[in-house]
Amino acid sequence: MRTEISTLGEFGLIEHLTKNIQLKNESSLKGVGDDAAVLHYPEKEVLVTTDLLLEGIHFDLTYVPLKHLGYKSAAVNFSDIYAMNGQPKQITVSLGISKRFSVEDLEDFYEGLQLACEVYAVDLVGGDTTSSLTGLTISITCIGEGEKDKIVYRNGAKDTDLICVSGDLGAAYMGLQLLEREKSVFDGKSDFAPDFAGKEYLLERQLKPEARKDIVEVLTKEGIVPSSMMDISDGLASELLHICKQSQVGCRLFEERIPIDYQTAVMAEQFNLNVTTVALSGGEDYELIFTVPLHQHDKVSSMKGVHVIGHITSDSLGRYLVTRDGAEIELKAQGWNSLS
Amino acid sequence: MRTEISTLGEFGLIEHLTKNIQLKNESSLKGVGDDAAVLHYPEKEVLVTTDLLLEGIHFDLTYVPLKHLGYKSAAVNFSDIYAMNGQPKQITVSLGISKRFSVEDLEDFYEGLQLACEVYAVDLVGGDTTSSLTGLTISITCIGEGEKDKIVYRNGAKDTDLICVSGDLGAAYMGLQLLEREKSVFDGKSDFAPDFAGKEYLLERQLKPEARKDIVEVLTKEGIVPSSMMDISDGLASELLHICKQSQVGCRLFEERIPIDYQTAVMAEQFNLNVTTVALSGGEDYELIFTVPLHQHDKVSSMKGVHVIGHITSDSLGRYLVTRDGAEIELKAQGWNSLS
Repeated sequence: MRTEISTLGEFGLIEHLTKNIQLKNESSLKGVGDDAAVLHYPEKEVLVTTDLLLEGIHFDLTYVPLKHLGYKSAAVNFSDIYAMNGQPKQITVSLGISKRFSVEDLEDFYEGLQLACEVYAVDLVGGDTTSSLTGLTISITCIGEGEKDKIVYRNGAKDTDLICVSGDLGAAYMGLQLLEREKSVFDGKSDFAPDFAGKEYLLERQLKPEARKDIVEVLTKEGIVPSSMMDISDGLASELLHICKQSQVGCRLFEERIPIDYQTAVMAEQFNLNVTTVALSGGEDYELIFTVPLHQHDKVSSMKGVHVIGHITSDSLGRYLVTRDGAEIELKAQGWNSLS
Repeated sequence: MRTEISTLGEFGLIEHLTKNIQLKNESSLKGVGDDAAVLHYPEKEVLVTTDLLLEGIHFDLTYVPLKHLGYKSAAVNFSDIYAMNGQPKQITVSLGISKRFSVEDLEDFYEGLQLACEVYAVDLVGGDTTSSLTGLTISITCIGEGEKDKIVYRNGAKDTDLICVSGDLGAAYMGLQLLEREKSVFDGKSDFAPDFAGKEYLLERQLKPEARKDIVEVLTKEGIVPSSMMDISDGLASELLHICKQSQVGCRLFEERIPIDYQTAVMAEQFNLNVTTVALSGGEDYELIFTVPLHQHDKVSSMKGVHVIGHITSDSLGRYLVTRDGAEIELKAQGWNSLS
């Protein structure tokens, strides 16, 4: 079944896709349907982040289902708000759509989007929809709230602070490699069955990443306000260097401490990739990297899903990876930079 | 002079383009450079609007200078905030950029963007920059403030209210027709000089539209809170029908009252277009349409740049254009719908 978008028109399409949306957050006064959404933030600061996702650059619809893409587009924006130690509350979603897409395609995309909004308690409050000459363009802006004294920036890391990360790293990148390999093996064969058995974790990390709402909640519960925090979207090395640069500090990152899942290690081996490089420079982990004062070592060490992977130094000591054999290698952001 | 974007990389490019930006509004706590911008809206409501502009759909760079495009991209978003009876305060700007564009091109775009920000007292607080396979993609989100009891929606128009518009209509559309004509006449001729003499107003309305900050200021000064308001981006007919539909009312719009500039009328004649159709369905005017109670007739009539063009009726009386000879024609949004 394929319904052409032209049968609904721009306004009909928006109405069709958004008719069941109900606002749930107290801060959402007015959503879709006027010149602007109206929000209410009398007591907390307003956090705003935005992402532009382009077909052929950020996603490949030959193996990314639109429902997953909707979920991921929302989740990666929520991740930026959590990275400020905040809570996402609203999103606006703009789409540029070529003739290739049907109303049903957009229903799939919105289904994923709305699922993510439900899971993370976020309201969809607006957007823009237009035709495009080629491909799908997605622009999402997320608005969230943060408490004045608890918003965490990138520039607060201090000498001797511990460097922590959530979850494990490199899995999303290996998931991408796997999907790309199967795509090239497939090459139009009609009887092709991709070989994904035992690799579900990698695929899920690539196709349906989650934002670490849980980590922000545990930090709050433990009374920890990190001295700096970011989400890991371009690779651990790139993000840690951002923190060091903006905080004017150095760091020591211990290779043996970097958390890597078993499947990630196995796949890196198969692809003849150094798994540390994958963790340092593979993109789209959407884990959190944060720093805390040394005296909170016991607290963060006992937090589920958090690993202490190194420590901050004075700026003059430089920014280094300490390898398993004790060598120091200067950290470089070789990583996943979509403009490089 | 042409500097490739790859020489700077994504982060270098953002730093280069945003290094001179200073935050001026009290509500802007933290701008470019972290996972999210941080804003402060303790007393007023937060307004959020977003627009997606795609090359080949919304603009043609063969005749639109990038500086103008930057200015216009910002101004059209400000217009949506004014349409809520609010004041724009911040924007985020996301760009998808193909290899065709140089650092100098983006400098031009940002120059226009920052000029608009200065003129309208808006801070640029964030965005996203990425490569694109083809063309230029622009996504702008504007955040503004509105006073709780003075925000104006589309759904408040009441029977007997007066329908008012600012400025004049159809000029931006005729400017577009003119540019398209000269482009097709040009057709690669090296000695081609476009014939724009005496048509500067039409070109300016198309290439460098202004948002009607002044009208919102005068309304405030006069103590008028419109019962409904929108900005006119898709044509007068389309917007008036939105107001009628959402307010569940009818209307009578008087053809002879629709404000049309002399140049617009002359060009419409040359192009063999009905000038009323141009005003009703031509897009991108970025004027304001609003309704006020009948008793404010004298006030709005004496407001500079405001025209009373009709009145609201009960829903059952339908939505009609009353022509110069007194005939009633049902209003239809034939207009400039980028998905049709």
